[in-house]
Amino acid sequence: MSAAPIKCVSIAIKHRSKESIRLARELREWLLRRGAGVQLDEGTRRSLDLPEEPASPFGTDLVVVLGGDGTLLSVARGLEKDVPILGVNLGSLGFLTEISRAELYPTLVDVLEGRYRTVERSLLNVELEREQGSGGSYVVFNDAVVNKSALARMIRLGVCIDGRSVATYRADGLIVSTPTGSTAYNLSAGGPIVHPDVRVAVITPICPQSLSMRPLVVPDSSTIDVRLETPDEEVYLTLDGQEGTSLGYKDSVRIRVADRTVTLVKATQRTFYDGLRSKLRWGG
Amino acid sequence: MSAAPIKCVSIAIKHRSKESIRLARELREWLLRRGAGVQLDEGTRRSLDLPEEPASPFGTDLVVVLGGDGTLLSVARGLEKDVPILGVNLGSLGFLTEISRAELYPTLVDVLEGRYRTVERSLLNVELEREQGSGGSYVVFNDAVVNKSALARMIRLGVCIDGRSVATYRADGLIVSTPTGSTAYNLSAGGPIVHPDVRVAVITPICPQSLSMRPLVVPDSSTIDVRLETPDEEVYLTLDGQEGTSLGYKDSVRIRVADRTVTLVKATQRTFYDGLRSKLRWGG
Amino acid sequence: MSAAPIKCVSIAIKHRSKESIRLARELREWLLRRGAGVQLDEGTRRSLDLPEEPASPFGTDLVVVLGGDGTLLSVARGLEKDVPILGVNLGSLGFLTEISRAELYPTLVDVLEGRYRTVERSLLNVELEREQGSGGSYVVFNDAVVNKSALARMIRLGVCIDGRSVATYRADGLIVSTPTGSTAYNLSAGGPIVHPDVRVAVITPICPQSLSMRPLVVPDSSTIDVRLETPDEEVYLTLDGQEGTSLGYKDSVRIRVADRTVTLVKATQRTFYDGLRSKLRWGG
Amino acid sequence: MSAAPIKCVSIAIKHRSKESIRLARELREWLLRRGAGVQLDEGTRRSLDLPEEPASPFGTDLVVVLGGDGTLLSVARGLEKDVPILGVNLGSLGFLTEISRAELYPTLVDVLEGRYRTVERSLLNVELEREQGSGGSYVVFNDAVVNKSALARMIRLGVCIDGRSVATYRADGLIVSTPTGSTAYNLSAGGPIVHPDVRVAVITPICPQSLSMRPLVVPDSSTIDVRLETPDEEVYLTLDGQEGTSLGYKDSVRIRVADRTVTLVKATQRTFYDGLRSKLRWGG
Repeated sequence: MSAAPIKCVSIAIKHRSKESIRLARELREWLLRRGAGVQLDEGTRRSLDLPEEPASPFGTDLVVVLGGDGTLLSVARGLEKDVPILGVNLGSLGFLTEISRAELYPTLVDVLEGRYRTVERSLLNVELEREQGSGGSYVVFNDAVVNKSALARMIRLGVCIDGRSVATYRADGLIVSTPTGSTAYNLSAGGPIVHPDVRVAVITPICPQSLSMRPLVVPDSSTIDVRLETPDEEVYLTLDGQEGTSLGYKDSVRIRVADRTVTLVKATQRTFYDGLRSKLRWGG
Repeated sequence: MSAAPIKCVSIAIKHRSKESIRLARELREWLLRRGAGVQLDEGTRRSLDLPEEPASPFGTDLVVVLGGDGTLLSVARGLEKDVPILGVNLGSLGFLTEISRAELYPTLVDVLEGRYRTVERSLLNVELEREQGSGGSYVVFNDAVVNKSALARMIRLGVCIDGRSVATYRADGLIVSTPTGSTAYNLSAGGPIVHPDVRVAVITPICPQSLSMRPLVVPDSSTIDVRLETPDEEVYLTLDGQEGTSLGYKDSVRIRVADRTVTLVKATQRTFYDGLRSKLRWGG
Repeated sequence: MSAAPIKCVSIAIKHRSKESIRLARELREWLLRRGAGVQLDEGTRRSLDLPEEPASPFGTDLVVVLGGDGTLLSVARGLEKDVPILGVNLGSLGFLTEISRAELYPTLVDVLEGRYRTVERSLLNVELEREQGSGGSYVVFNDAVVNKSALARMIRLGVCIDGRSVATYRADGLIVSTPTGSTAYNLSAGGPIVHPDVRVAVITPICPQSLSMRPLVVPDSSTIDVRLETPDEEVYLTLDGQEGTSLGYKDSVRIRVADRTVTLVKATQRTFYDGLRSKLRWGG
Repeated sequence: MSAAPIKCVSIAIKHRSKESIRLARELREWLLRRGAGVQLDEGTRRSLDLPEEPASPFGTDLVVVLGGDGTLLSVARGLEKDVPILGVNLGSLGFLTEISRAELYPTLVDVLEGRYRTVERSLLNVELEREQGSGGSYVVFNDAVVNKSALARMIRLGVCIDGRSVATYRADGLIVSTPTGSTAYNLSAGGPIVHPDVRVAVITPICPQSLSMRPLVVPDSSTIDVRLETPDEEVYLTLDGQEGTSLGYKDSVRIRVADRTVTLVKATQRTFYDGLRSKLRWGG
């Protein structure tokens, strides 16, 4: 419950959200008044109509995300080093955003003085190897999804783990999810809920033809290769449901739990299970 | 087990299948030798390199489909009147195709003389009403599917039955299936298996966000309206997994069990349950 | 919306519910004041401390059930002839009980004068044939369940429909449900929701070992035979979750949709789908 | 792939299996001829009609189990110290038994000389605290199950993890499973498949009333408390599906991943995924 005091805060906003921009402006001033440095990325600076400024000599000690789980996903993927993130939910309670808007300033008073805990959340590295053309390298916080387009027929996806064949899925697609992502798309597709402290990846087929093709929880040491074995269909690789790229016949996606983690500020006593109780109405 | 003798047979082939074309040629000659009339649609006639012929004065009494379940779906949708269909499976056993290639001629000997039973299968009428632009009217044998594209986010689909609101599904999409289609995509999405003699429609969400949104079996008198309530996402209406058209914001799809049915020749003692036993390995 | 006026009402109470007894007493007096006959079964009469009375010469035209869905199930099973039932829910909203306590008298004013609609609900006949000892004959409104005891191992249940083998389920048990029962135990076991106007039975295995053993919706003409094929395990047949009897090795349960139906008074505009919306939170 | 040579082998047989007894006798002589010590528990010794012998001064270095997964479960629970187990399957391929009967002697030649790898599998400690009467302490290899009897109604089970309330399940029961047990009862109840190297427990409700109550994968540090909150129903705690004890109102079961593990001899190149492919027909 004790960490280094915060000298410089980065603020991230929800794209095109007026409420988020307004709050960012207010928060920036509040932080400056308290003597903290504030750093904004180019887009946020423009959204706030602020002049260009030199980068903080300190570097950033904390990122405050003003948005929802989606904004936080996007910020976490983009971070270059492991700076703690505090998610402030502007809408309904999320699994990732820790506090409501009303709790922002009381929480920050504590956090700036180092009175906070953090939790680590795992990420997945995703490497796309194309049969033709250059691939790509990505990181995801929730999930990497291989998915046929709406008009395509059922596709075949060959999955190997640690070089050994596991299954050929005939399905609409396949989700490889972090524990964090287990309560997102994975849950809709029939996958289990996984506590974020568990170090695993979850492999869940989307509408598999064979009913015995059930979700699979694998160790964090696993190298998961997913290969498109159906030609001539429109198929995509989607990252955290936010970015996508097309996938061709025999293209292969290699997924591993990343060495890098995301650090979230844990400012309340709420547990993961409290989140389940309120989001999935498990209470009572 | 007794019906009118067959005077004129129509032959339908699987698109681009050499085996199907070869068998069609052979079957045509066999039928002509037995004194039956043979009628081919334009495409099949060309695939068989046959000259144009006047249409049979009798009309067709039977359609023999040389292909798989997919070919039969397509033929059934296109029939203008209710002529019995005999499906001959050229690949693995299907749910719709009744006999294997080896059983073709022995079966036809009986069928041509009127020694056969038939079963009726229901169809769905699908009417697309667009907010902008002209809609369309379709018929499906398996299912009508509203489905987001791979890169789209989860969509909202408002469903009314008989003018009363039932639910707003937040999901990847929604399947409205005939009993015949219940063992196809519906089954992969978690829907129940429905015996084809039952007169119902099955409404099954695809990866719904809310876990209480379970498959729903409704009476054949139901008028089901599905309306896209999410703007700016790429969404499609797909018919029997074979034809598709894009769906816009507030576009609406009205689905009803059709008055017209499909008549299948029942040439063997195999029941629907025998099909389940072999296809889903329920035996033993 | 118009039926014969009601001359004599039977009142059924929830076993050992003080609130139900109090309301029964009040309702009886209200009915007598309005000139309607009232008939009570022996148990209810004693619960209300009333002297014995001669049976009504008219017979009963209406049964008012003061309780929940469970009480109504039990009353419906016991009815000898098809008298309309009006369910009054004393607790939370049910699928079967039509009105709340507050709606009772306003509704009855209309019903007594014949201003009401009714809906028919199907029942299942259940015949138990034992290898040893005498069997039994039952009727259920929700479901007939064959279920292993907590300490027994997985059992094998052979299912034939219309004399043809369908499957041998290796499972904890099997539910055969009416459409009415589809939202009860069937739903918890993974079965579909079936609109009560549909005339079918639903066969759903409980925790089947084979993942391809999915719920099956069969026509109302089906004769379903379920036979216990595992010796030496403690197994029970349970009727509407309320009555049970043990089942021995090779004992067989024959289940058919009954000719007799249950008639429910439909006093409100609420549809089956409205029930889903409120019970399963499908709204919004 | 190299371990200490084996000096003394313990043989465990499948209860009442003639084949297992015959093979045990043969194996015992084979081992003695090779100069290895053989140790039998009291029951096995009697099944083999052998005279009493003094215990081996070496202690046992290996347990060979001649039976199926069930026999191995039972042996593993009973082991007092962590001796490697080699499972020989006498029936169909299991998830736990490593080799077939035909592979027994070739495998043992290598194993006796220390040419083998081992894998660790986790166990669960189960402590029963009764409101009335003395509790008990157990260990399970597959799962601990709290389950209502066939005639009982749905029960309420309150679950706390690490002292925090997670949910009150209204269900037929609840499974807490090891990764090893994930492919057993857990899978039939809708739980995920978990690779045995992952250190977690899986909590899966059996036929839960609320459809949002999905399987939950929790860290191996978790203390899981399951408390029966329904009075007057017949409920049992079952251990590995093999032993059971009744559970009363407010009785509580505390489950934790055990410090002790089970060591299995890994004599083949078969992976966990190969097991899935053959048992669940994931191949091809």
